[in-house]
Amino acid sequence: RRVGYPEVIYCAGKTSGQVTAILKAMLEREVNILATRASRELYQEIREICPDARYSPLAGAVTIRRKEVKAPPGYIALVTAGTSDLPVAEEAAVTAELFGNRVERIVDVGVAGVHRLFFNLETIRGARVVIVVAGMEGALPSLVGGLVDKPVIAVPTSVGYGASFHGLSALLAMLNSCASGVSVVNIDNGYGAGYIASMINNL
Amino acid sequence: RRVGYPEVIYCAGKTSGQVTAILKAMLEREVNILATRASRELYQEIREICPDARYSPLAGAVTIRRKEVKAPPGYIALVTAGTSDLPVAEEAAVTAELFGNRVERIVDVGVAGVHRLFFNLETIRGARVVIVVAGMEGALPSLVGGLVDKPVIAVPTSVGYGASFHGLSALLAMLNSCASGVSVVNIDNGYGAGYIASMINNL
Amino acid sequence: RRVGYPEVIYCAGKTSGQVTAILKAMLEREVNILATRASRELYQEIREICPDARYSPLAGAVTIRRKEVKAPPGYIALVTAGTSDLPVAEEAAVTAELFGNRVERIVDVGVAGVHRLFFNLETIRGARVVIVVAGMEGALPSLVGGLVDKPVIAVPTSVGYGASFHGLSALLAMLNSCASGVSVVNIDNGYGAGYIASMINNL
Amino acid sequence: RRVGYPEVIYCAGKTSGQVTAILKAMLEREVNILATRASRELYQEIREICPDARYSPLAGAVTIRRKEVKAPPGYIALVTAGTSDLPVAEEAAVTAELFGNRVERIVDVGVAGVHRLFFNLETIRGARVVIVVAGMEGALPSLVGGLVDKPVIAVPTSVGYGASFHGLSALLAMLNSCASGVSVVNIDNGYGAGYIASMINNL
Amino acid sequence: RRVGYPEVIYCAGKTSGQVTAILKAMLEREVNILATRASRELYQEIREICPDARYSPLAGAVTIRRKEVKAPPGYIALVTAGTSDLPVAEEAAVTAELFGNRVERIVDVGVAGVHRLFFNLETIRGARVVIVVAGMEGALPSLVGGLVDKPVIAVPTSVGYGASFHGLSALLAMLNSCASGVSVVNIDNGYGAGYIASMINNL
Amino acid sequence: RRVGYPEVIYCAGKTSGQVTAILKAMLEREVNILATRASRELYQEIREICPDARYSPLAGAVTIRRKEVKAPPGYIALVTAGTSDLPVAEEAAVTAELFGNRVERIVDVGVAGVHRLFFNLETIRGARVVIVVAGMEGALPSLVGGLVDKPVIAVPTSVGYGASFHGLSALLAMLNSCASGVSVVNIDNGYGAGYIASMINNL
Amino acid sequence: RRVGYPEVIYCAGKTSGQVTAILKAMLEREVNILATRASRELYQEIREICPDARYSPLAGAVTIRRKEVKAPPGYIALVTAGTSDLPVAEEAAVTAELFGNRVERIVDVGVAGVHRLFFNLETIRGARVVIVVAGMEGALPSLVGGLVDKPVIAVPTSVGYGASFHGLSALLAMLNSCASGVSVVNIDNGYGAGYIASMINNL
Amino acid sequence: RRVGYPEVIYCAGKTSGQVTAILKAMLEREVNILATRASRELYQEIREICPDARYSPLAGAVTIRRKEVKAPPGYIALVTAGTSDLPVAEEAAVTAELFGNRVERIVDVGVAGVHRLFFNLETIRGARVVIVVAGMEGALPSLVGGLVDKPVIAVPTSVGYGASFHGLSALLAMLNSCASGVSVVNIDNGYGAGYIASMINNL
Ligand SMILES: Nc1ncnc2c1ncn2[C@@H]1O[C@H](COP(=O)(O)O)[C@@H](O)[C@H]1O
Ligand SMILES: Nc1ncnc2c1ncn2[C@@H]1O[C@H](COP(=O)(O)O)[C@@H](O)[C@H]1O
Ligand SMILES: Nc1ncnc2c1ncn2[C@@H]1O[C@H](COP(=O)(O)O)[C@@H](O)[C@H]1O
Ligand SMILES: Nc1ncnc2c1ncn2[C@@H]1O[C@H](COP(=O)(O)O)[C@@H](O)[C@H]1O
Ligand SMILES: [Mg+2]
Ligand SMILES: [Mg+2]
Ligand SMILES: [Mg+2]
Ligand SMILES: [Mg+2]
Ligand SMILES: [Mg+2]
Ligand SMILES: [Mg+2]
Ligand SMILES: [Mg+2]
Ligand SMILES: [Mg+2]
Repeated sequence: RRVGYPEVIYCAGKTSGQVTAILKAMLEREVNILATRASRELYQEIREICPDARYSPLAGAVTIRRKEVKAPPGYIALVTAGTSDLPVAEEAAVTAELFGNRVERIVDVGVAGVHRLFFNLETIRGARVVIVVAGMEGALPSLVGGLVDKPVIAVPTSVGYGASFHGLSALLAMLNSCASGVSVVNIDNGYGAGYIASMINNL
Repeated sequence: RRVGYPEVIYCAGKTSGQVTAILKAMLEREVNILATRASRELYQEIREICPDARYSPLAGAVTIRRKEVKAPPGYIALVTAGTSDLPVAEEAAVTAELFGNRVERIVDVGVAGVHRLFFNLETIRGARVVIVVAGMEGALPSLVGGLVDKPVIAVPTSVGYGASFHGLSALLAMLNSCASGVSVVNIDNGYGAGYIASMINNL
Repeated sequence: RRVGYPEVIYCAGKTSGQVTAILKAMLEREVNILATRASRELYQEIREICPDARYSPLAGAVTIRRKEVKAPPGYIALVTAGTSDLPVAEEAAVTAELFGNRVERIVDVGVAGVHRLFFNLETIRGARVVIVVAGMEGALPSLVGGLVDKPVIAVPTSVGYGASFHGLSALLAMLNSCASGVSVVNIDNGYGAGYIASMINNL
Repeated sequence: RRVGYPEVIYCAGKTSGQVTAILKAMLEREVNILATRASRELYQEIREICPDARYSPLAGAVTIRRKEVKAPPGYIALVTAGTSDLPVAEEAAVTAELFGNRVERIVDVGVAGVHRLFFNLETIRGARVVIVVAGMEGALPSLVGGLVDKPVIAVPTSVGYGASFHGLSALLAMLNSCASGVSVVNIDNGYGAGYIASMINNL
Repeated sequence: RRVGYPEVIYCAGKTSGQVTAILKAMLEREVNILATRASRELYQEIREICPDARYSPLAGAVTIRRKEVKAPPGYIALVTAGTSDLPVAEEAAVTAELFGNRVERIVDVGVAGVHRLFFNLETIRGARVVIVVAGMEGALPSLVGGLVDKPVIAVPTSVGYGASFHGLSALLAMLNSCASGVSVVNIDNGYGAGYIASMINNL
Repeated sequence: RRVGYPEVIYCAGKTSGQVTAILKAMLEREVNILATRASRELYQEIREICPDARYSPLAGAVTIRRKEVKAPPGYIALVTAGTSDLPVAEEAAVTAELFGNRVERIVDVGVAGVHRLFFNLETIRGARVVIVVAGMEGALPSLVGGLVDKPVIAVPTSVGYGASFHGLSALLAMLNSCASGVSVVNIDNGYGAGYIASMINNL
Repeated sequence: RRVGYPEVIYCAGKTSGQVTAILKAMLEREVNILATRASRELYQEIREICPDARYSPLAGAVTIRRKEVKAPPGYIALVTAGTSDLPVAEEAAVTAELFGNRVERIVDVGVAGVHRLFFNLETIRGARVVIVVAGMEGALPSLVGGLVDKPVIAVPTSVGYGASFHGLSALLAMLNSCASGVSVVNIDNGYGAGYIASMINNL
Repeated sequence: RRVGYPEVIYCAGKTSGQVTAILKAMLEREVNILATRASRELYQEIREICPDARYSPLAGAVTIRRKEVKAPPGYIALVTAGTSDLPVAEEAAVTAELFGNRVERIVDVGVAGVHRLFFNLETIRGARVVIVVAGMEGALPSLVGGLVDKPVIAVPTSVGYGASFHGLSALLAMLNSCASGVSVVNIDNGYGAGYIASMINNL
């Protein structure tokens, strides 16, 4: 692992006792730490043992900075389709930023209001790598992939109802993207997208 | 049924004997006739008993015109994503035209080459109803739905491979369209789209 | 967009803070507003900032009328299979009415009690477009489609249990309708059906 | 087993050698025999060793009558939605008839042409048990179940394309029937429907 | 409908207001009434307006008897695989009994303890029709079907976890039964099984 | 790996050139060899370079014996539901026998003819491990698991049609077995069952 | 059953009244008892009637020891991928230990930190049978299966989110294992794995 | 698009007439050309109009080089699980090489023979980006992702049978990878993986 790279705890399905035990061991190694899928209650408990822990309620993520991370020169564009996709997008942002990356957020540019996407095309095209977060029909990564010449990391979200089948619809759409240069992570996996985008931005 | 409206035979899964028997009965009623999912071989047999039958090899459709149909003043825009979607689109076109509609075809404007869609926006916006045919990620109807203020009939196609699951991906995407004004017919159902678009164009 | 057309907020998955923020911006533009998937609690908060907001508890929809909408001459028939499908049907009705349409409701005419459907056939046939809402086996749109010569917008609902798979059964049945002139929106998407029916009724 | 009841061979996935070996053993027991899913080629081979074997090409079934079967007083109504469902329906008919039942066939009464169903209601209501065969949206058994007061055996067929998913659509619809008195057998299982209907007719 | 046949309310997804309104109308017609999927709370409210209503907590069913029903001479065997399947089985029993049938219950005879099934074979074989209720692998109807010469109505239950997929596993197993004479109703549909078994027992 | 243990080639999806190249390298190591999913044509080509190769047409398997394998004292019982499951069962048998095991075959004992299973119970109970092969509803392993006190390896087969979904039905049934001591391999994976049964028999 | 073998209650979906009734009957037979899927509340009630009952909160299992069980000489290796898989693994351990087996636990060796697996290879290879518990991508059993020459019982868990589809992803991966000697039990079925591993360890 | 970047034709589902027409237009622009999913017959026809076209039979890909492409300094590691995955891997290799990249192939290192992977770890770790191709259980990308600190593009293949469900098993496993830094393209989409890997290698 690169120096300064955070260690990560995925809190879902873990008791707060398990989380704080893991955390204590990490804190001894003096590393940066990211805890995802953390409730505000869990954050309160974490702050007991680590007062400099920060919390993003939108992302549900706790961050602890103990080491300086070298920032790469480029930036990551983070494109989000709708308001309900913001938690997943913010998990990606928090992850990428803790890894030292600059993140440019372009929100609410879903295909039903596509003109807003075109207003932001310069920012998107200027990035080294683009994360696109969308639920429901999951069309945005294909559209972005057709407009920019950079790797696109697509994140399907479970936003939607009925035939969205908890994100399956968006996932399949993204996997079938007719635009080249799109690859996909798991449904709601903002963390995974932030991680791989950071890797690419640091090449 | 309106005067001049065709009668329709769905040939898949029928023997040529069954098709020609049905056809003979229809011919006696002196109506217009549409036979879909017809191979060239079947067409040859049909021509034996009905020399004025016409065949569209792309659509796999046989048409027989015996009655004049009153043409409505407006037109149907038929928007297609890729080359491989053309057979399904053409089935919709043949259907709508036999029902007396004018059809404006806009082809190969999938979201990966979205600028071509914008070149044709005037034509699409001028229609009374829009049919959008797409496979793979099925994003085009959402995009068109966001750009035009007319009913959009979306037709998913089985074009694709792997996680397209024979059109499921496109179908789900279209059902989850975040643009208002989009409704969906069965995978590869060009006929159904042409029929309902004709109904709407004739209102 | 046509003058007087409402702006729409989909409230599911949004905090009440997010909804009221969006609402305030809309209220400044003096437009009609529709907020779907709204709980009574959310409605109470909305009424704080907008005392003329109305609430349909059955539809879970908030409506705010600030502009007159020109009513088209025809009407929309809204056909519902069972009592449990009423919330989805009413979302369609509220939507269509806010867009200025007259809506004729024909309720509880599912295929198990099909004679009630026949009593209402004149009303259904007199409409310019028909919305059919049904869960479980989703057979009603096919039956209606075979009896009327108008576009049918089919809305599958998640009503049912076991092998209804949360509306999948009704959705598939409607997509496979052997009657021509049927197109389908997402499971439980009353809003979408009301919107496209309004578009068609305004042609 | 009742006297005279046939023994049955399911020929799909068996070599003609396996089928004729089983058949020879059965012939020694001087029973009636039904062989389903049999091609014409297989029938030719069967006729070599059993010249009184009969073949229904529509059902793909071979029958051999060696024993008299007592006919029950009532009859089975066999209702079919479309032309393409006929092979499955005929498998049911051949099965039920070889078991000694009278079968009244009512064909081509799918929900898109529902008036034809009403013309035949007396015949259907007169039966002791009703078999309903339908593909695509599989709505017919629900409709029949709502109109008659007899047990309905529903047979989904794999007729259809796209979102019919090889009969899944019809199967789910039938399992979710909102009419009471409907039970379901496997997709395309005409034999199973004929067998259980015969059991019921013989009570 | 036969004289004395109950009218039925499916309470799931209905407000108690809707249920009691429907009930009041029925009570005026002096019919027997069955209300399924009813909580004890709902039953308390029902008793307010109908003190002679009875409640089966296991089945979650309310019954009201106002008319005598003629009992057929035979009986229905009701075979259950495990303890957790009892609520579904009891819904079938309550239904069949309200329709005037005698029901013989054979419980806890799942295939893992198959000897208990054989102890009860005489009772099962003596019935006119057999209902078999099972979850998980759903093997019991096939086994019973192979042992008895009467129509078997199979009821898959949602009992299980993991790859039972809420009853899908049992449903598919029952549809694929290699024993003849088995037909299937929806997952957890005890009512439907009781209804059709009653129809058959009354032939 | 134990001395004398075979090396294995899975021939499906390999060209005959690829298979024979792999085989030549193996032959130099003087090991026993098993080639599964091999057509008769492929076998002919294999015999050119290895005249002592044997072929089981039922299993579609080629075996080459070059080393003696020590036989364990116990035996494997191989229980098969129907005639159409025999190819998968025989792949298991050929595999286990080449690994030095004695295999006792009990065929055609599916749950629809369960008495044949009881005739063979002694043989099954005498084995150290039991392989059970079944398609369609896949009930046999549960039944065997409830009757014997030995590990059961269940092999679902793709035998069936309609709602068997190419073996999914049998697979799910086996995974949900209510009998203890059952574990499952992939659909049609006779080889895998033979291999793990051999491992267990050699403990 | 072997002397001393426990009797087992699966508590999920049973009322505490049903559980204690079953328990009382078992206690009279003076056998060892295992109750799985038991909450702490249920345990409290059990302790009322059986003060020597023990509870594993991690496994959610109650154990009652009344008989000595003969311990086999070998041991079972229990390999777990991640912290969240521990409850399922512990259910397997408690089961196997109550059946008299020695269980060696190797935890937190998922494929993302594969070096920890290699540190423990000796312990795993020394076992007679290996249980491998993993969620998400379910890769660990394949890896272990390729490294050891003993039967591997794979247990998929429902740990994960999004495209894990409640354990389906891990289940399919394990069924498709390219390593020989792997068989699979139901999602989260720690009990089943412990049972069959115990059977194998006792051969 | 960068200078020298190829234009691409996806030949599946296109007639040879359609392909050559597209090709002729491209040839006039003097660009490099890649045609994927091309049969040898199609290649013969292409060579008629373009004698310098090259064909990779393993990849099923035609390449035409007319422009020099600047090679980036790093290389792409292409890791393949089994022999049957080679066609998909080679499509990725041909794509990446035509885009000017150096590709290091590491074949046949599936998790069942994991030691071969470790022999090649230096080569894999030296790459700027890693493509991992695997079918069946799709475990390899997780394993590689845990061992290297570079972006991993995972390509599931349709290799396998039964519960591999044409690549679904591998796809889900890869999406659920517990290793960070893995993103996924469509089943069998070697082209897409080669394209995005090339993009990353050129950053
Ligand atoms: N009940 C509903 N179901 C589906 N889509 C809806 C619904 N209500 C509103 N919408 C759509 O959601 C859009 C608003 O989404 P949002 O910006 O997230 O509030 C509207 O323009 C509609 O297209
Ligand atoms: N068309 C059919 N569909 C389903 N099951 C059938 C069919 N024909 C025969 N069967 C069943 O298959 C059994 C014979 O199977 P087999 O012994 O494999 O020939 C019969 O006893 C029937 O239960
Ligand atoms: N019929 C079969 N089904 C599943 N896996 C098999 C089969 N035959 C062989 N195998 C496995 O495939 C491996 C050989 O695969 P390969 O190297 O592609 O020939 C063997 O070591 C076995 O693990
Ligand atoms: N093997 C492949 N798999 C997926 N997409 C491909 C493949 N080959 C080409 N493509 C995509 O298909 C586009 C060309 O499609 P078309 O215009 O239909 O020939 C290319 O620009 C690529 O984005
Ligand atoms: Mg791009
Ligand atoms: Mg629009
Ligand atoms: Mg109509
Ligand atoms: Mg009825
Ligand atoms: Mg029977
Ligand atoms: Mg057992
Ligand atoms: Mg091994
Ligand atoms: Mg890594």
